[in-house]
Amino acid sequence: MTVVDVHTHFYPDAFMDLLRSRTEVPYVRSFPDNPAAGDRLVILPAEDTASTSRGRPIGPEYYDIKEKIKFMDQHRIDISVISLANPWLDFVDPAEASNMARLVNDNMNQLCAESGGRLYAFGTLPLSAPVAEIVQEIKRLATLKYMRGVIMGTSGCGKGLDDPALDDVYEALQTNGQFIFLHPHYGLPSSLYGPYANDYGHVLPLALGFPLETTIAITRMILSKVFDRHKTLSVLIAHSGGTLPFLAGRIASCIAHDAHLKKEGQLVTRKSVFDLLKQNFYLDAVIYDKIGLRAAIDAAGAARIMFGTDHPFFPPLDDEEGQDEWLSVSLNTSAIKEAVGDDENELAAIMGETAIEMLRLDQSKAGD
Amino acid sequence: MTVVDVHTHFYPDAFMDLLRSRTEVPYVRSFPDNPAAGDRLVILPAEDTASTSRGRPIGPEYYDIKEKIKFMDQHRIDISVISLANPWLDFVDPAEASNMARLVNDNMNQLCAESGGRLYAFGTLPLSAPVAEIVQEIKRLATLKYMRGVIMGTSGCGKGLDDPALDDVYEALQTNGQFIFLHPHYGLPSSLYGPYANDYGHVLPLALGFPLETTIAITRMILSKVFDRHKTLSVLIAHSGGTLPFLAGRIASCIAHDAHLKKEGQLVTRKSVFDLLKQNFYLDAVIYDKIGLRAAIDAAGAARIMFGTDHPFFPPLDDEEGQDEWLSVSLNTSAIKEAVGDDENELAAIMGETAIEMLRLDQSKAGD
Repeated sequence: MTVVDVHTHFYPDAFMDLLRSRTEVPYVRSFPDNPAAGDRLVILPAEDTASTSRGRPIGPEYYDIKEKIKFMDQHRIDISVISLANPWLDFVDPAEASNMARLVNDNMNQLCAESGGRLYAFGTLPLSAPVAEIVQEIKRLATLKYMRGVIMGTSGCGKGLDDPALDDVYEALQTNGQFIFLHPHYGLPSSLYGPYANDYGHVLPLALGFPLETTIAITRMILSKVFDRHKTLSVLIAHSGGTLPFLAGRIASCIAHDAHLKKEGQLVTRKSVFDLLKQNFYLDAVIYDKIGLRAAIDAAGAARIMFGTDHPFFPPLDDEEGQDEWLSVSLNTSAIKEAVGDDENELAAIMGETAIEMLRLDQSKAGD
Repeated sequence: MTVVDVHTHFYPDAFMDLLRSRTEVPYVRSFPDNPAAGDRLVILPAEDTASTSRGRPIGPEYYDIKEKIKFMDQHRIDISVISLANPWLDFVDPAEASNMARLVNDNMNQLCAESGGRLYAFGTLPLSAPVAEIVQEIKRLATLKYMRGVIMGTSGCGKGLDDPALDDVYEALQTNGQFIFLHPHYGLPSSLYGPYANDYGHVLPLALGFPLETTIAITRMILSKVFDRHKTLSVLIAHSGGTLPFLAGRIASCIAHDAHLKKEGQLVTRKSVFDLLKQNFYLDAVIYDKIGLRAAIDAAGAARIMFGTDHPFFPPLDDEEGQDEWLSVSLNTSAIKEAVGDDENELAAIMGETAIEMLRLDQSKAGD
């Protein structure tokens, strides 16, 4: 069985240099007075406090490709489709965004080329740049041998993924056969977590903010009829769709019961939400339990679910030697095995075959 | 098979008088210059615009108990556990809250007493009042024959349901065997829905804002260890738990991977989230599709899921005669039948038996 990890992040040198050069979120912070503390990566405003207990440790697992391969070997992962971790280039000055995107994407493609068929990648778009430049980079990505799509956050060009300004971007992605890997970053306003949130570590923004942000983003895309205008656009939705498989019925019902949408003669029907799950959407299997994964399979079909790890995030807290299988990985592999039961075809599809087919990860052609 | 509806709202006279007396959200608005427009209920700030297309029509289905009984007969519902619709008494002046709670609760209890065993109720707490007064009303509710718990929003006394100030409230509810029916109201900030949200009617706040708000609230309760301190407190969570069944694995994993919680020696373990679903939580079956309902059953067990309608919200858009079965009801009954398959015991449990047992809806003793 070939195992493919479609949700695995990496910061190439070009991006690390950028993060180290910055003093505002997102940035990499060093503690010259306390080298033992190590460097810390601060990617969310809520993490940006004076204490070294905020942010997260960042080591070579984020930026040394040998560590990615080591992790893959340790977890019997044959191929990884690496992507830049959030917040991508959302924050970059518009005048510099296209240049930085080219640097980062070339950097990623080169790492894949040197991997002997172990690595492919999702690229990063210069979303702060003018749309014409974004489209230009999509066309260029299609010429890079190991690029299979783009990772995108939920802000688009700043107004969200239901922004009509993105139509040219979606059209270019569709025309060039590139997936969108839709991934959260911004979470929800911290006010929603209340005055006691600091007692709960990072649990609320990570466990809830991320998937809820994703759910809102994809629902806005549905409601704005992105998929009526770009009928074969494919979106791989992180974290098993946020919460879309669970809420699809409620979303569809709210559409069917909305007087305003009815008056406007909405084209989005109740059926559409479920149809999209089987026609345009793919879901990763990063959900950490069989119950959620079963809902994802029920909603999209086992042939549209793809294994992922979210590496290097969620390392084991106790693994001082770096030898253990990561709990965050074993939770997901166990969930897949428990959800599919005896169905070995479904298991093989989720663990790798679907990714190989849909993302064209043809090993015989790699590395040449 | 006895059918019990545990999620069904009603505004008794005392509360309607309050809503009609107000000019700020929440309130009932009339259009004297355009009587054909009917009265409109505005319960969310986002609905409070000049246009009559905002808010929602409010008619006797909200405040005439005969309409509730008619709806029950039409949908073959034997017993309804009625509750005040949001926003309950959250907005009431602290000095008036306790008095208003007593009026509303007595009003509801009297309607149940006159119903010949068809109606029970969840009461409403004066949450803006001092805690001692809230506890006093809980004790009083326990003496009202048809009250089986309280409906609560997510704000508690203003700081959320993880506020330690609520400990006396939770303890009083537990001691008096009263359920919390946890129900959303506040949704999420409209900024999250972006600049195009008006094109989507009420879909985003209703379909996403409500269940996501609920998920945050119950997770905050879990993380603040409410259920470690009040081990037998029972919570019926609206809309099949918001998204809790789907996200339980992710929440548990984030807890297990959080360095801050580990350092603090957290008592909340990964296992706890799933244990709570089988020990303290009940979920209604208001989810509109078999996929979500299956996840709810998988998470909590069929013996902890209870049928509900959300009446009088989500009326059919085309039912001018008022004769049709409501789509919002049939979606849920179909979802239950499809999710349980041939298991008639599970069907009977979800449709009514669990509610009868857990909420002590003993028909032989009713109406006397």
